[in-house]
Amino acid sequence: MSATSTASTAYSPARVVADLRALADRTGGPEGSRRLAWTPEWLSARTLLRESLTGLPVEVDEDEAGNVWVVLRGERPETLVVGSHLDSVPKGGWLDGALGVMAGLELIRSLAAEGIPPVTVALVDWADEEGARFSRSLFGSAACVGTLDIEVLRGLTDKEGAKLPEILAQHGVDIDNLDGARTRMNDVKAYVEVHIEQGPILESMGKGICTVTGTKGIERERLIFRGQAAHAGTMPMEMRRDSFRAASRFALAIAEIGERHQGVTTVGHAQCWPGVVTAVAGETRITMDMRHIDAGSLQAMFDEAHEAAAAAAEAEGCTIEWEHIFRIPPMPFHPALLEAARTSVREVEGHDVELPSGALHDASEMAREVPTVMIFSSSIAGLSHTKEEDTPDEHLHMAADAFDRTCRRAIDLIVAGEL
Amino acid sequence: MSATSTASTAYSPARVVADLRALADRTGGPEGSRRLAWTPEWLSARTLLRESLTGLPVEVDEDEAGNVWVVLRGERPETLVVGSHLDSVPKGGWLDGALGVMAGLELIRSLAAEGIPPVTVALVDWADEEGARFSRSLFGSAACVGTLDIEVLRGLTDKEGAKLPEILAQHGVDIDNLDGARTRMNDVKAYVEVHIEQGPILESMGKGICTVTGTKGIERERLIFRGQAAHAGTMPMEMRRDSFRAASRFALAIAEIGERHQGVTTVGHAQCWPGVVTAVAGETRITMDMRHIDAGSLQAMFDEAHEAAAAAAEAEGCTIEWEHIFRIPPMPFHPALLEAARTSVREVEGHDVELPSGALHDASEMAREVPTVMIFSSSIAGLSHTKEEDTPDEHLHMAADAFDRTCRRAIDLIVAGEL
Repeated sequence: MSATSTASTAYSPARVVADLRALADRTGGPEGSRRLAWTPEWLSARTLLRESLTGLPVEVDEDEAGNVWVVLRGERPETLVVGSHLDSVPKGGWLDGALGVMAGLELIRSLAAEGIPPVTVALVDWADEEGARFSRSLFGSAACVGTLDIEVLRGLTDKEGAKLPEILAQHGVDIDNLDGARTRMNDVKAYVEVHIEQGPILESMGKGICTVTGTKGIERERLIFRGQAAHAGTMPMEMRRDSFRAASRFALAIAEIGERHQGVTTVGHAQCWPGVVTAVAGETRITMDMRHIDAGSLQAMFDEAHEAAAAAAEAEGCTIEWEHIFRIPPMPFHPALLEAARTSVREVEGHDVELPSGALHDASEMAREVPTVMIFSSSIAGLSHTKEEDTPDEHLHMAADAFDRTCRRAIDLIVAGEL
Repeated sequence: MSATSTASTAYSPARVVADLRALADRTGGPEGSRRLAWTPEWLSARTLLRESLTGLPVEVDEDEAGNVWVVLRGERPETLVVGSHLDSVPKGGWLDGALGVMAGLELIRSLAAEGIPPVTVALVDWADEEGARFSRSLFGSAACVGTLDIEVLRGLTDKEGAKLPEILAQHGVDIDNLDGARTRMNDVKAYVEVHIEQGPILESMGKGICTVTGTKGIERERLIFRGQAAHAGTMPMEMRRDSFRAASRFALAIAEIGERHQGVTTVGHAQCWPGVVTAVAGETRITMDMRHIDAGSLQAMFDEAHEAAAAAAEAEGCTIEWEHIFRIPPMPFHPALLEAARTSVREVEGHDVELPSGALHDASEMAREVPTVMIFSSSIAGLSHTKEEDTPDEHLHMAADAFDRTCRRAIDLIVAGEL
């Protein structure tokens, strides 16, 4: 089975879902999707995309960062970019990223069937959005807006020890020439992406789709609590300097901080040294992830986290060290495109629900340089990055429909010189 | 340099320390001692012990569990056993276990120089006390009292995947015949062991040695908190079921339980799944170790730990599962031998300090079957299982002296039919 390419003028949400199922048939399985970036199965997904373009009046090529560009030339060089990513986490879901690519494919198909569009429209399959193999997410979109740190990239390895520069080279990507992808942004006037929510909020509200107001800012840090390793039997409680107890105090405090500021805070990883049942942990490393749509609130949470960590360390006679992992500011989307999305959601599902995105998307990088907006579909039980990831078909249809309407409004705005 | 074997009638604590330094010269190094059980360097340590016996009227052999027995036949078959272990943890200290073996060696030397002792005296170098490679401590002493679970042993592997039964076979130990070591206990009437405290209490009291009243009972469990893995950015705080938060609540609660009962409680290991910075931990596994010298208090702590775990799980919408790891009841030492040790400590350092041992020792296994007592020396800063492990020479001398006096009193008690 291959993606459908039956010609038809009107944008068909059903065809988007059919294309998604074709992709899942080729690159999914009982354990979930297998489209890890820079692997043969990811290339297989990209081949399916290229096959689906057969007969369409488009130019297809890859930029210097491995992003696939499908360009439908319009009457003017000003460009609307749509897209998302075909890569997935290992054992991932069938919709994460793929929805945006297939919805964009259908947009290209329907526009092409209508003749030459007034502006150029490009579908991009961004390379390695997930960062699941080398821990650098948003790889391809970051390259286009120049936010990659090449020196950091040089040092990245996967679990097997393979080096990112060598793996990139195997895929025709030269780590010393990633900046070449910057030129793709020259005529870009707007970016629109549709994605599953990957969270439970829309479902809990009984809604299928919504406008996305922006992506939350993120602070990611590693915290290292250091006390004194000691024998679990011979060190009296009152003489201990227990780093895991300090980490535990912090984990509870940071949750309270997230709740109080209506943000999200997470300790998702912990490791103790020596890490055995018979020893007090002399050192405990944890990760912290905190997100907020408002930059001031995010800063306040971050400041309070530092106070909480210092207090937790002091309470247990430990020291605390912070190691920076990642930071991205909140990325509010563009007012005119937000209005286009709101109108489209209202037309399709009859409400004005809008949410900030707690997850990062390629739209987070695009929003740094060009007017951007996103549409969400619901996620069943909020699950993503797992084979259980799913969305009711009718919500996928509504999301594709609202995306199409938003894109056409974006084209109108570009033509009107308002973007 | 080899262990000293100069003949001299009187028990010489200085010779014990000299033997310990000779052992450290052969099997230590800048990173600490390297006498991991069932490795060539452990065998090298045992060879040093055998070399030190040259010229002594002793019978030396290994039992079915790999314990080395050095037997000085007395006028009667009733036997005093002394000993400890030459094996160490990787990068361990120079005194842990070795002190007891070398102090016992000096006892054999001094008794042999005095003629045939009234009862038989045996020095044992217990095999694999630490359990550092296969996670089963007290291997050799447990074999002698029949407390090994052979079926559990069959499944044990080291970090490289080597199987315990095969490694034992390489050392002449048949896993199906470990019970043969039981016969060694037939004539044993008492067991005396000297060991470093491995904790900071004696040092904090300004003392060099003390009588040990028994070894604390231990409950070791693995706790598995299960919630729901979720995206760190998209799952609202109020909808989370965060297993690491549940584990954190438990870690703080169990510390309070240990303090309140004047026992010790430790969470030394934690592991989260999926265990990444960007995900709420759906599952967190931690270990719990709790110890008390009083069986009733230990049971109360254990019961309260179950209540605390249930409350922590419920507070975070998680479930809790317990996996049993290890259990040993408190092992109070023998009244007559305790009196002998107290008298000896009083003679040597002039006080009546006594402590329970928070660490397990081979004496914990021996105490199941025969009258047992221990003497502790101090540990600088309470450190053990590390190359920094050390004890002032004068404290080592006092410990060896008090051990010698206690052993001679034990011999008198055996002769008098009081053990």
